[in-house]
Amino acid sequence: MTNPVYLDNNATTRVFPEVVEAMLPYFSEQFGNASSIHAYGSEVGGALRRARKSLQALIGAEYDHEIIFTSGGTESNNTAIRSALQVMPGRNEVITSTVEHPAILTLCDWLEKHENIIVHRIPVDKQGRLDIEAYRAALSERVAIVSFMWANNETGTVFPVEGLAEMAHEVGALFHTDAVQAVGKLPIDLKTTDIDMLSLSSHKFHGPKGLGALYMRKGTRFRPLLRGGHQERGRRAGTENAPAIVGLGRAAEIALSTLDEDTTRMKALRDRLEQGLVQQIGHCFVTGDPYDRLPNTATVAFEYIEGEAILLKLNQAGIAASSGSACTSGSLEPSHVLRAMDIPFTAAHGAIRFSLSRDTTDADVDRVLEVMPAIISGLRDMSPFWSEDGAQPDGFHPEYA
Amino acid sequence: MTNPVYLDNNATTRVFPEVVEAMLPYFSEQFGNASSIHAYGSEVGGALRRARKSLQALIGAEYDHEIIFTSGGTESNNTAIRSALQVMPGRNEVITSTVEHPAILTLCDWLEKHENIIVHRIPVDKQGRLDIEAYRAALSERVAIVSFMWANNETGTVFPVEGLAEMAHEVGALFHTDAVQAVGKLPIDLKTTDIDMLSLSSHKFHGPKGLGALYMRKGTRFRPLLRGGHQERGRRAGTENAPAIVGLGRAAEIALSTLDEDTTRMKALRDRLEQGLVQQIGHCFVTGDPYDRLPNTATVAFEYIEGEAILLKLNQAGIAASSGSACTSGSLEPSHVLRAMDIPFTAAHGAIRFSLSRDTTDADVDRVLEVMPAIISGLRDMSPFWSEDGAQPDGFHPEYA
Repeated sequence: MTNPVYLDNNATTRVFPEVVEAMLPYFSEQFGNASSIHAYGSEVGGALRRARKSLQALIGAEYDHEIIFTSGGTESNNTAIRSALQVMPGRNEVITSTVEHPAILTLCDWLEKHENIIVHRIPVDKQGRLDIEAYRAALSERVAIVSFMWANNETGTVFPVEGLAEMAHEVGALFHTDAVQAVGKLPIDLKTTDIDMLSLSSHKFHGPKGLGALYMRKGTRFRPLLRGGHQERGRRAGTENAPAIVGLGRAAEIALSTLDEDTTRMKALRDRLEQGLVQQIGHCFVTGDPYDRLPNTATVAFEYIEGEAILLKLNQAGIAASSGSACTSGSLEPSHVLRAMDIPFTAAHGAIRFSLSRDTTDADVDRVLEVMPAIISGLRDMSPFWSEDGAQPDGFHPEYA
Repeated sequence: MTNPVYLDNNATTRVFPEVVEAMLPYFSEQFGNASSIHAYGSEVGGALRRARKSLQALIGAEYDHEIIFTSGGTESNNTAIRSALQVMPGRNEVITSTVEHPAILTLCDWLEKHENIIVHRIPVDKQGRLDIEAYRAALSERVAIVSFMWANNETGTVFPVEGLAEMAHEVGALFHTDAVQAVGKLPIDLKTTDIDMLSLSSHKFHGPKGLGALYMRKGTRFRPLLRGGHQERGRRAGTENAPAIVGLGRAAEIALSTLDEDTTRMKALRDRLEQGLVQQIGHCFVTGDPYDRLPNTATVAFEYIEGEAILLKLNQAGIAASSGSACTSGSLEPSHVLRAMDIPFTAAHGAIRFSLSRDTTDADVDRVLEVMPAIISGLRDMSPFWSEDGAQPDGFHPEYA
């Protein structure tokens, strides 16, 4: 039995052992409530302050109190959008894109149907790049908030959020970015940008699940989603999740200290994986922006077969990957992201996302390249849709140096 | 140096080592996203199902899918109230009590001021018991939801929630209970009650922080607070916090299997503590319902001194206790709970909550009884308000068998 290969890091990552080690004392020893005034509380308070500073460094925030700890990316996203709609009187429009995570799109659908909010969903092109002219046309002084993801969870396509934020400010709208997939994988320096709010999730960069943060630029008006105690300066009620916050802090330190080196290495592995698949297997192509993608994400569309079948075969071979987002898995619909990119159904159905991490090795990539050709040809032999004569849809065969 | 004594278990509890042990594999080994279809995901899914069953058993729910995991008691409370107001068209009133946790009261204040909701806050008597006649008078077909806590976090007073729920149903209102302090300390069998919704928090019964649950009786209409992915049957979006859910499950098993024995033991220790304090120290009294209180909570009001000063002295002696709720600490106002009970300022200011747990020992109680008389007399000697002639306010000196 070969070692298992985990290439589903955009769904979640392994918590680093150093992170678990940092968390452990806060379960059964320094377990106090950070809001308590006795020694059990105050020793935890110091640890939380250090963790907040570590996260501040990772995202380049000017002040540590611009960080609000939440239960994860979904809560951060929901909080940001709902807050903006409350603090921008007279503005009832939201601008977002067609390729956002469900935590944005499902909320926007609800707001549109039940809360009289007008939602503009800006389309993308076949490489997943935002239609800037459509965005410009949607901007007006009726817009309360613009929310564009920093990097796409399915294709890794990076949006130029700094410039998009400046455009939002030209009409006085707030700018939020869902950076759940970007934090820990791209250099981020918020203090040099116009971004007002940013959502992130600990478990996407080797921290614990159940914790995220919302960055709120100092001076940005805000309304809490969860009301109750005075935690997080009255901005997010609920007992501080001290072990997880300490874990996130440690994960942030690791991510920052190894960012350049690890992303260079991940990108090389990712490029070798994509190149190997495209060279060995016909009628497949890489999706997303060829020039600006996350270093860890390779989504490859294999035409005329079902992604679920590929995943099952990969799983049997000990390889974990995904088709689309874990948050929409179980659905037989092809990914909304690939459909928004106008990728034909025949290819979108067979798209597989390999998402790498700092843990990924050369041997992992070798293993995928070893098993995929036989998996694909075996499935195509059984497919009623398969024909060697099928036309090659749009997409790109990346060219590597 | 004597061993530290932790008597602030209503603020938070030590995570049991068995609970941490159960959680550990889910950080760095079985770390998959429970929503993923590969082996990493499915092995986590099984663990979550087992944990849900364990919690189901602890609260006596009829179905395991009546449990929605959340990030904690505050999120559960906020979700319950907001959901009820959305699913009960034509009803815009809420009934609650004056002694609820801030997670209910702060939300209700907001709803009243900004969202056109009418809030009835039912008073309590000097023992913290609900004014049932005032509740009856407030009930009408305009009420969407009644929310009464099962047990008070400051005094331990238990409300007769089963009967209160039946009264709510007589006018067609939903009934929610904040049972954050009751779960794990009182026997609960929801399937035999009229309770529609119940909030609980893992870290109040030796599980991890950052996790709670909302019980929603099957058939109760519901609107999610957090929108996004399909997790928790579409009722609470966000990647499942697998390690914490597994930990909560283990904590629930321990709580259920030791409930009778441990609460009997806690109550005996609590009674000895109260009796010892009242017998040794003049001008102090126990607050709360003498006949129906949590087995672990002793809030004793020491007249004519400041609670904060007592806490600092206790802290120096290695004893952690609290004045009021951790969620309101840092405020110089006396507890809203004791004020609602009409306890005079001169006594409410000097109220100290000792909250015991399964960890509490005879030696812990001995230590408190050893140091308290000198702390109180020392502080009274410095107090400008102190006079031996001061009248004894209301309250009770418990009589023990």
